[in-house]
Amino acid sequence: MTTDIEIAQSTELKPIKTIADELNLEREDWEPYGSTKAKISETLLSKLHDRPNGKVILVTSINPTPAGEGKSTITVGLGQALNKMGKKSIIALREPSLGPVMGIKGGAAGGGYSQVLPMEDINLHFTGDLHAITTANNALSAMIDNHIHRGNDLNIDPRRIEWKRVMDINDRALRQIVIGLGGPLRGVPREDGFNITVASEIMAILCLAASMEDLKARIAEIVIGYTHDEEPVTVKDLKVEGALTLLLKDAIKPNLVQTTENTPAIIHGGPFANIAHGCNSIMATKTAAKLSDYVVTEAGFGADLGAEKFLDIKSRAGEFDTNAVVIVATVRALKMHGGVNRQNLNTENMEALQAGMENLKKHIETIKTFGLPFIVAINKFPTDTKPETDFIKSWCESRHVDVALTDVHANGGEGGIELAEKVIEKAGNADQQFRHVYDLDDSLEAKIRKVAQTVYGADDIELSQEATKQLAYYEQQGWGRLPVCMAKTQYSLSDDPALLGRPGHFTVAIRELRPSIGAGFIVVLTGNMLTMPGLPEKPAALDMDVDPDGTIKGLF
Amino acid sequence: MTTDIEIAQSTELKPIKTIADELNLEREDWEPYGSTKAKISETLLSKLHDRPNGKVILVTSINPTPAGEGKSTITVGLGQALNKMGKKSIIALREPSLGPVMGIKGGAAGGGYSQVLPMEDINLHFTGDLHAITTANNALSAMIDNHIHRGNDLNIDPRRIEWKRVMDINDRALRQIVIGLGGPLRGVPREDGFNITVASEIMAILCLAASMEDLKARIAEIVIGYTHDEEPVTVKDLKVEGALTLLLKDAIKPNLVQTTENTPAIIHGGPFANIAHGCNSIMATKTAAKLSDYVVTEAGFGADLGAEKFLDIKSRAGEFDTNAVVIVATVRALKMHGGVNRQNLNTENMEALQAGMENLKKHIETIKTFGLPFIVAINKFPTDTKPETDFIKSWCESRHVDVALTDVHANGGEGGIELAEKVIEKAGNADQQFRHVYDLDDSLEAKIRKVAQTVYGADDIELSQEATKQLAYYEQQGWGRLPVCMAKTQYSLSDDPALLGRPGHFTVAIRELRPSIGAGFIVVLTGNMLTMPGLPEKPAALDMDVDPDGTIKGLF
Repeated sequence: MTTDIEIAQSTELKPIKTIADELNLEREDWEPYGSTKAKISETLLSKLHDRPNGKVILVTSINPTPAGEGKSTITVGLGQALNKMGKKSIIALREPSLGPVMGIKGGAAGGGYSQVLPMEDINLHFTGDLHAITTANNALSAMIDNHIHRGNDLNIDPRRIEWKRVMDINDRALRQIVIGLGGPLRGVPREDGFNITVASEIMAILCLAASMEDLKARIAEIVIGYTHDEEPVTVKDLKVEGALTLLLKDAIKPNLVQTTENTPAIIHGGPFANIAHGCNSIMATKTAAKLSDYVVTEAGFGADLGAEKFLDIKSRAGEFDTNAVVIVATVRALKMHGGVNRQNLNTENMEALQAGMENLKKHIETIKTFGLPFIVAINKFPTDTKPETDFIKSWCESRHVDVALTDVHANGGEGGIELAEKVIEKAGNADQQFRHVYDLDDSLEAKIRKVAQTVYGADDIELSQEATKQLAYYEQQGWGRLPVCMAKTQYSLSDDPALLGRPGHFTVAIRELRPSIGAGFIVVLTGNMLTMPGLPEKPAALDMDVDPDGTIKGLF
Repeated sequence: MTTDIEIAQSTELKPIKTIADELNLEREDWEPYGSTKAKISETLLSKLHDRPNGKVILVTSINPTPAGEGKSTITVGLGQALNKMGKKSIIALREPSLGPVMGIKGGAAGGGYSQVLPMEDINLHFTGDLHAITTANNALSAMIDNHIHRGNDLNIDPRRIEWKRVMDINDRALRQIVIGLGGPLRGVPREDGFNITVASEIMAILCLAASMEDLKARIAEIVIGYTHDEEPVTVKDLKVEGALTLLLKDAIKPNLVQTTENTPAIIHGGPFANIAHGCNSIMATKTAAKLSDYVVTEAGFGADLGAEKFLDIKSRAGEFDTNAVVIVATVRALKMHGGVNRQNLNTENMEALQAGMENLKKHIETIKTFGLPFIVAINKFPTDTKPETDFIKSWCESRHVDVALTDVHANGGEGGIELAEKVIEKAGNADQQFRHVYDLDDSLEAKIRKVAQTVYGADDIELSQEATKQLAYYEQQGWGRLPVCMAKTQYSLSDDPALLGRPGHFTVAIRELRPSIGAGFIVVLTGNMLTMPGLPEKPAALDMDVDPDGTIKGLF
């Protein structure tokens, strides 16, 4: 079998200038980064303000399993298929995080004949956006510790600093650390820890900002911790919002690349999908909409996390419409939801498949709740049997659910034509009744309950003592009108990762809240969220190499 | 007075394509990074192998003082002057470190009308080289801790890990930390610390590597620490040299920019000048030599550190000739060496100036020891009086030392014509008798003694018990043939930063050695070297800002 990197290396890329020209970008609207990457000016969006918007197609999925769903691959494949059909389409994706690439994944830029390229760059440092975010995040940490070291005029309580340092590397040993040891030359000792860069609030802010000005205003609002009197301390108090924004002056610009079939792709930002909202940047999505008939974009994890946040946080902040939703499922993942373990996925199992459909069913109900048209996309794997795919198709048809079999990994855009046709039909339907799951005027508690009941199917929520106390404090601080960003396991509709399929009769335990005031949401933690991954026994890095002639190995 | 950033913003830059075309680069030899920066292919050097080399001019200085010497400014100004005189010249500089820019410096790209541009990019993330080095360095740390966490097959002693994490931020609170706290999910507890990125051995390696292949071979040789049996553990043992090299695939490519007068400049790499060798990359310097008649390059700190390492480490590793040396001095700095404190520098003081000349005299003797032709460059400041500059001139002339008054900050290349004329004359002198201060066959102890006596003017060295033990161990490991990289205070010829001018009768205390086997030298620590700077009371970042229209403030 041809590997992803072999396909990538054998693809003839168009010069990025050609891609930019085909989008009718003027010379001032973009800058090349090498011959196959470019940055689009952050001011292009306001320049194109009066242009009509292309349709926004959101790709989401059932709850992810170790079997893999291929949401990015479908996103790329669908964009290519639309392009093949003569529609102007742009793919809008998140930037991969280097940590998981070096750790488990080895790459995160689609797969097979539906990849974004140059994957060697996109998977590694790309245009430096994540490094800029890391730097801005850690410069803020250094300013906080320097402030305390220099007399602590703001009365910051070192035990109540919420702002952590970040690194774009999987590094469990940095999860919990003590800094400032070794005497007065080395600062003031306190507990700290590193998150992975995509968990930084600055990443979430970059992805929700409307402009450079908005970026700075949001950064100023970040709450870094509390005083000894339990009052919030912000970046504005430290007077470094200007410097941090300056560090992001290029990172705010969306990145332009292309796919294996030379379809344009805008890749920009990539916040965590649990403690943040898990979508690429608003500026990228909206710029893509101005430049195309169809934007195909994705949201992290399953529809319970990614789509909910895309619709309740991102599109609300960005004030744009979503015109159709694609729900990706695979036979393999559905069988896992039906109780099959990973080792037995290659065997046909109609019973398990049928049981697993319950997970898909819940996500369909959720998208219906939002009032949006949708299509189920079956991402075909070589091990799928015809009875299995036929079963899904007839299951959908009997419920008047549109479904399309896709084969974009093996066949590129050609493998997504059926899906593209249905997407065009659905997105063209003007009779939409979009509604959010909650109103901003709802109390924080009511918002949490609505998401848990409507989207997860929970009976109710259960607040810890800590969460109850925080809810009161947050409402009192005037943070009650913000949307909630649920940090829940991606593996289950419930807060228990072991409960696959569609769990019945459960409550969601709300452990703790965290303010992301700059991003503009309240993070709601259910269970323990690891915000710094670890490396596996045999990290993907062990297989990576670069030959003397520059040939790259071990990315996929 | 017009500030540096105002001059930078009012300069009309040529498109980087024009600069590349003027150097006769072919399309395959370079890639644009935005419209005013480019990366030059790392293979260009071997492609141009048979082309004759331009002259290499090294700019060094007296021992630095808080009064400022302006070595980078002179380097840029001299390159511009040569260009003005119709010579093809290229400036080869180090990349600034973001930490000091945000901390004290606010910028490090020359000054006035002798700057490299775009300074806003060069001073911040530039083309991402330092971020790539940070990532490779910290990926290695994560691999080390993961190895120990997963059973420690290599028997690494966690108390003897020499490899530290790095960050390109001034952050004293990270100097000494404890990691891996919080139980088995969070790794194995041990002491660690962060250095600033430019102190990473990977930075030194990048700057000394001859090719991608050599880069990987050197990375494989890095000693990360010792086993419980006190045997060295290398990157090769951990099997990650391929992945780390892959992370540096773009960082290895020299960066092309231009000056305020559109003279080409290659800016690449920037290792610390105490625990590393303090020069830009060999690939940059040699590539520049292939493309020009004159390369003007600089080395960190004064001639006792920078020039010695340039000549004993860099040019030896790179096997290239140095054709002339410029020793930069200022009236102000010489007066500080003569005993004046910083507050009184604006007052004429002939006595102090005369006393301070002793510092310059020693550096002149050092360059003579190397057998190289040289010129003293007086970098004029508005506060200098005519009697003061006249004194320096006649002091030099009476000793048959060539001297030139330069005014490149205020007047660009025009202010460096006299210096350029003398440089051309000196560098054209074929009658050179270059010799190193030590031979590679000398023992490590003999090498250290020769540098201390010949270059610093010390009576002798004094080895600590630890250093004596290490010398024996290093010779036994077969590391005795490597050059030594002296880590000494930059402020004094001696190892005591308070001894300005030319200290008499002193010994240099050798505290400790550290192996930089990948870089290919043994670091020799005299006194305490801080490898992670701290932030001042009022960091430069407090004045930085970016306006809604993109205008940048606070860099200089």
